[in-house]
Amino acid sequence: MEKGRLEGFSDGVLATIITIMVLETKAPEGLDAAAIWAAAPAFLVYALSFVNVGIVWNNHHHIMHATDRVNGVIMWSNLFLLFWVSLIPLLIRWMNEAHFAASPTAAYGVVLAMVTLAYVLFEKAIVAYNGSGSKLASAIGMEWKGLLTLGLYIVAISLAFVSPWIAVALYVVAALLWFLPDRRIEAIV
Amino acid sequence: MEKGRLEGFSDGVLATIITIMVLETKAPEGLDAAAIWAAAPAFLVYALSFVNVGIVWNNHHHIMHATDRVNGVIMWSNLFLLFWVSLIPLLIRWMNEAHFAASPTAAYGVVLAMVTLAYVLFEKAIVAYNGSGSKLASAIGMEWKGLLTLGLYIVAISLAFVSPWIAVALYVVAALLWFLPDRRIEAIV
Amino acid sequence: MEKGRLEGFSDGVLATIITIMVLETKAPEGLDAAAIWAAAPAFLVYALSFVNVGIVWNNHHHIMHATDRVNGVIMWSNLFLLFWVSLIPLLIRWMNEAHFAASPTAAYGVVLAMVTLAYVLFEKAIVAYNGSGSKLASAIGMEWKGLLTLGLYIVAISLAFVSPWIAVALYVVAALLWFLPDRRIEAIV
Amino acid sequence: MEKGRLEGFSDGVLATIITIMVLETKAPEGLDAAAIWAAAPAFLVYALSFVNVGIVWNNHHHIMHATDRVNGVIMWSNLFLLFWVSLIPLLIRWMNEAHFAASPTAAYGVVLAMVTLAYVLFEKAIVAYNGSGSKLASAIGMEWKGLLTLGLYIVAISLAFVSPWIAVALYVVAALLWFLPDRRIEAIV
Repeated sequence: MEKGRLEGFSDGVLATIITIMVLETKAPEGLDAAAIWAAAPAFLVYALSFVNVGIVWNNHHHIMHATDRVNGVIMWSNLFLLFWVSLIPLLIRWMNEAHFAASPTAAYGVVLAMVTLAYVLFEKAIVAYNGSGSKLASAIGMEWKGLLTLGLYIVAISLAFVSPWIAVALYVVAALLWFLPDRRIEAIV
Repeated sequence: MEKGRLEGFSDGVLATIITIMVLETKAPEGLDAAAIWAAAPAFLVYALSFVNVGIVWNNHHHIMHATDRVNGVIMWSNLFLLFWVSLIPLLIRWMNEAHFAASPTAAYGVVLAMVTLAYVLFEKAIVAYNGSGSKLASAIGMEWKGLLTLGLYIVAISLAFVSPWIAVALYVVAALLWFLPDRRIEAIV
Repeated sequence: MEKGRLEGFSDGVLATIITIMVLETKAPEGLDAAAIWAAAPAFLVYALSFVNVGIVWNNHHHIMHATDRVNGVIMWSNLFLLFWVSLIPLLIRWMNEAHFAASPTAAYGVVLAMVTLAYVLFEKAIVAYNGSGSKLASAIGMEWKGLLTLGLYIVAISLAFVSPWIAVALYVVAALLWFLPDRRIEAIV
Repeated sequence: MEKGRLEGFSDGVLATIITIMVLETKAPEGLDAAAIWAAAPAFLVYALSFVNVGIVWNNHHHIMHATDRVNGVIMWSNLFLLFWVSLIPLLIRWMNEAHFAASPTAAYGVVLAMVTLAYVLFEKAIVAYNGSGSKLASAIGMEWKGLLTLGLYIVAISLAFVSPWIAVALYVVAALLWFLPDRRIEAIV
């Protein structure tokens, strides 16, 4: 199968997710500075989620360069990845409704961890299809960044029950790790 | 007419449907384990719907390989298919609002049955345009999978009034039947 | 300018419109046959709107075949068309909230009339760019279908204040007029 | 990297934004002329926002003609632009909920100013990648239009606290400035 429609469909899903998140974000509930300040956490989590979906799209874009065709396993691992990304708007709503309590903030981390895991599996499906001896396979190597991010999320999920804002700070750190596209792939493409 | 825009439009509709379903899914209404557990049915139905729309997209992708051009009948049978898929978010909302009562759970099955029927009609429109003697036509043969799925849905719709969860279990079985893309088409493409 | 991105953007807007209309459609407010029957008008207007947006997409697809490049006038008349189509979900919500009273049902007709007018202007912009002596220009001729539809909508808007359902019946007639893509264009493409 | 997917993703995001804004726009809350008239500001702001997103898409389309490939800086400055555009639906909701009070009307101007600034940065990223001696660079010159618009927005934001409708009038003036695509770029493409 050619990769064009998988890219087009994934772009459509990611574009819709990154946009409808705003429907789940609260506007300030008053007109003065205090009301606007009270909406800051909602804005911060929206911006963080925007960056996270942007990272997924950016990395998706990069890895798809490394393959010309796709098979059923790549298709379904792509849908598995999109599934977890699609839960981000739901988690934004829950965090907003529950005023950034520990449970939804931890659950947000679980979703981000599943997105990372699903991305690693998606990457593995593409490597497997293109041969483990391929340049891509050797370039990706140990996937240390994926493992490091997963570790960070596990720590953040636990610490959410100490303070949700420690968890959010760690989510920001994890996003910064992924902010730049994967140089390893860029170097060989 | 070329098939490119029909594919692009269909991808856009399916990508939007698969994403806005999350807007109709309830977040947990509390913070403890019991509240999160109470949201499990909503999550399960969301995941099932995601897989079902994924199956439609996957099969749409496959069958469109078998044709190069489209006519008015293919266009309108495609819109008929998208119409029934577009009702899935509405049914998710109704099931959530009615706490997975028999009526909405049965109605969800009616929509899935109509999606299956519309897909079979869409397939027939493509076969008719490409000639009944074409490879595709002979490969598709009796469309036993479509008929089997329709039968399953009719049974499930009836049993929803005994227990909605029996119906949901049968919807899961039907999704598993379609999980893999159609080998018959893959073999000839 | 090439027409590719205008087609892609328009497909994205129309795909999103045709899908989010379902968010503005009421689910039944009870579980028995009476409650489901009471939701029938909402379902009917949703289906009618789906067909109307499908017609716009279908005709858009057709007329774009007749041009290879676009200019600023075509771009902005395209956005003017999309603007009026984008109001359909708002009108669906208003009709649902007001239980299909005369005002929103008439306003729905005003929006459909503006969509028709905007489509005629869009067609004129494409003809003007390709030359009034072009095959397309002569094929389109007097645009009798657009004028007839506009007339129908004006009658329907007035009669909405006698009975909204007369108006809806005329909207269905107008949709049937446009159901098939424009044979005049098809004949020359 | 090729520019195709960046264009496709941006079109998807802008198409979704321009469409979901309608979900945040109030329908009239009654059936008589007074109720419909009371909904006029919401309609006006919706139309203004539609034109503004249309302008962003139009200019995005134009500037992308001037480059064949994109790098990481262009990608992230593109996402930065889309981020600010994505806040428009949130601001529409806040303006509607707060009945077009000074704070949300000023905040809407802040978002439009950030969209303008982000567009200028996006333009700079494309010029930098294509070389400062390129035709595009000299054609764009001093970006007087961006600076003028930013100035207008700063004045409008301040005057929103005198009267929100003065601010809206200035937003309309700024939109008119950008209504036509950039002749400077068009002249060299």
